[in-house]
Amino acid sequence: MEAYNITVVGASGIVGQEFLKILDERQLPVGRLRLLATARSAGKVVQFRGREIVVEETTAESFGPEDHIVFLSASGAASKQYAPIAAANGSFVIDDSSAFRMDPNVPLVIPEINPEDLEWHRGIVSQPNCTTTPMVLALNPIHRVNPLKRVIVSTYQAVAGAGAAAIEGLRRETEAALAGRHEPSGTQKREIAFNAVPQIDLFADDGYTKEELKMANETRKILHAPEVRVSATCVRIPTFFGHAMSVWAEFERPISAAEARGLMAAAPGIELMDDPAAERYPTPMDVAGTDRVLVGRLRPDHSTPGGITFWTVTDSIRKGAATNVVQIIEEAARRGLIRPRAGVR
Amino acid sequence: MEAYNITVVGASGIVGQEFLKILDERQLPVGRLRLLATARSAGKVVQFRGREIVVEETTAESFGPEDHIVFLSASGAASKQYAPIAAANGSFVIDDSSAFRMDPNVPLVIPEINPEDLEWHRGIVSQPNCTTTPMVLALNPIHRVNPLKRVIVSTYQAVAGAGAAAIEGLRRETEAALAGRHEPSGTQKREIAFNAVPQIDLFADDGYTKEELKMANETRKILHAPEVRVSATCVRIPTFFGHAMSVWAEFERPISAAEARGLMAAAPGIELMDDPAAERYPTPMDVAGTDRVLVGRLRPDHSTPGGITFWTVTDSIRKGAATNVVQIIEEAARRGLIRPRAGVR
Repeated sequence: MEAYNITVVGASGIVGQEFLKILDERQLPVGRLRLLATARSAGKVVQFRGREIVVEETTAESFGPEDHIVFLSASGAASKQYAPIAAANGSFVIDDSSAFRMDPNVPLVIPEINPEDLEWHRGIVSQPNCTTTPMVLALNPIHRVNPLKRVIVSTYQAVAGAGAAAIEGLRRETEAALAGRHEPSGTQKREIAFNAVPQIDLFADDGYTKEELKMANETRKILHAPEVRVSATCVRIPTFFGHAMSVWAEFERPISAAEARGLMAAAPGIELMDDPAAERYPTPMDVAGTDRVLVGRLRPDHSTPGGITFWTVTDSIRKGAATNVVQIIEEAARRGLIRPRAGVR
Repeated sequence: MEAYNITVVGASGIVGQEFLKILDERQLPVGRLRLLATARSAGKVVQFRGREIVVEETTAESFGPEDHIVFLSASGAASKQYAPIAAANGSFVIDDSSAFRMDPNVPLVIPEINPEDLEWHRGIVSQPNCTTTPMVLALNPIHRVNPLKRVIVSTYQAVAGAGAAAIEGLRRETEAALAGRHEPSGTQKREIAFNAVPQIDLFADDGYTKEELKMANETRKILHAPEVRVSATCVRIPTFFGHAMSVWAEFERPISAAEARGLMAAAPGIELMDDPAAERYPTPMDVAGTDRVLVGRLRPDHSTPGGITFWTVTDSIRKGAATNVVQIIEEAARRGLIRPRAGVR
């Protein structure tokens, strides 16, 4: 893989920082690296491979034809403003916001599942919400041989999904609570220390939150399965890293837990940690800081013969966000979809 | 209501202590109060209505015909040993363990739902697991007019459900974690501070935990609905008080969220806190120390037309345990089922 010039928008955020770390871990060749952020973070100095890079403020003029790859990990508003500019310059744009995920002109990609969707990109590629990715990675190997019909999922989401301020918020709230004080940090919809908050993102008209609707819509798009029905309940709990979820799934034909286990075990990107007899199953702590998508508690469902239910855990900042972006870059590079390698567009 | 002699087994435990508090709150007349516990707690002095009561060690000789009511809140093994002795003495025995819940000779009672089952007691009455009670209270008003068919539930359970040591365990683990140390207290199956643990109680052969099977079996017994299918996933999270759960339910006939809301609003024992437009819904913090069973996030289910999904929260020590016991006593007294009021047995 040749060295690309990479620009990161939101470089001082938690996902932006992890992205830089993963570029290093996976030894991606990087040409010129530009780090952009809001005015508040401009001027900060970030170390990358022995270089010192000064974070600059993002403006409409920040982008140019010399940017091969632009990764946006900022607000949806920032994505809407800057992604089209970068794409118009011929850059390969990867967006981590929800701004373009459901745009029919934008592929939504998990490289282990639908890398071929990268081929029809028109400059912008989107990546799924951090709760969608682990669930779809676990369901896809079964869906390939026995189409997915319905999913009911309840999440146990860590505060890291809401950014660095939310991590600090949980820490401060917890210290206060241990001292007997309630001091909501304002980083979640309610005080989160020793609490559970069933609202992530805003409510839509149908009583679901946007986070819950994302899980449904993105699952259908990634799996190319517009008929799949998904009911999600997304809940923030007082964990720092590692989104967990309890998933119930029904497929076109009945499936045994043993068959599901076999298909998952053979699939890329997921890993079974599942042995009830030994009380083995994953917890958020097992995945923090890793790229693992762990599945456990896989069992035949008691409510629906032929259905299954399981528990899956992943680090929302890693495979739920930054790692998936780096994998998209690797896959797009392999396919010659990033300039200057090939004049695909 | 006349004054009954009450004996509490497990009087130094978290539920036993709360039970004494609730006797007071609800101004139950109490005659002689005896407090029993393990040898470890014997000798402790407990204040009750200005009296000082010394906790005694429980033995087979602790029970006599002068005990009108015996409340057992200890281990299942202790219940199995002592409940039959107390019942043989003619005491009205209420058991908080799982020992007798599924015994066909023992009523399993939530007074708002099946108080009439008290009539056929043979000395022992059981009360549900702390996760079953809120779920069944929310489902029953619909079930009465439209029979319940299937339930899929994922729980978010507080450590208080595992006793006082677990509360101290979470506190100690959290302090250590904030200081950067992992020091599992051993009070849960894994370190629980800033983690989520999908195992409560032991695993059965089918991959479900006993806690999960309790929710299924007890729901069927309380609702007199042997055909209802329940699939539960029970998860411990780092909250002190307040069990929450995400519930999906399907009934014989389709039901709208509005109809479900109307039925729940009119039902005793539950309270709607549900206004997405105002971002109003319950969290564990809203119920800690109260008897409220709060329901929110009630919405038409996206996976199944005619199904509903909702979120419910209650304090597992209060309505999930001690308050329900006091309500059973009140109801049984009203019905003349406790000596010396009436010679029913």
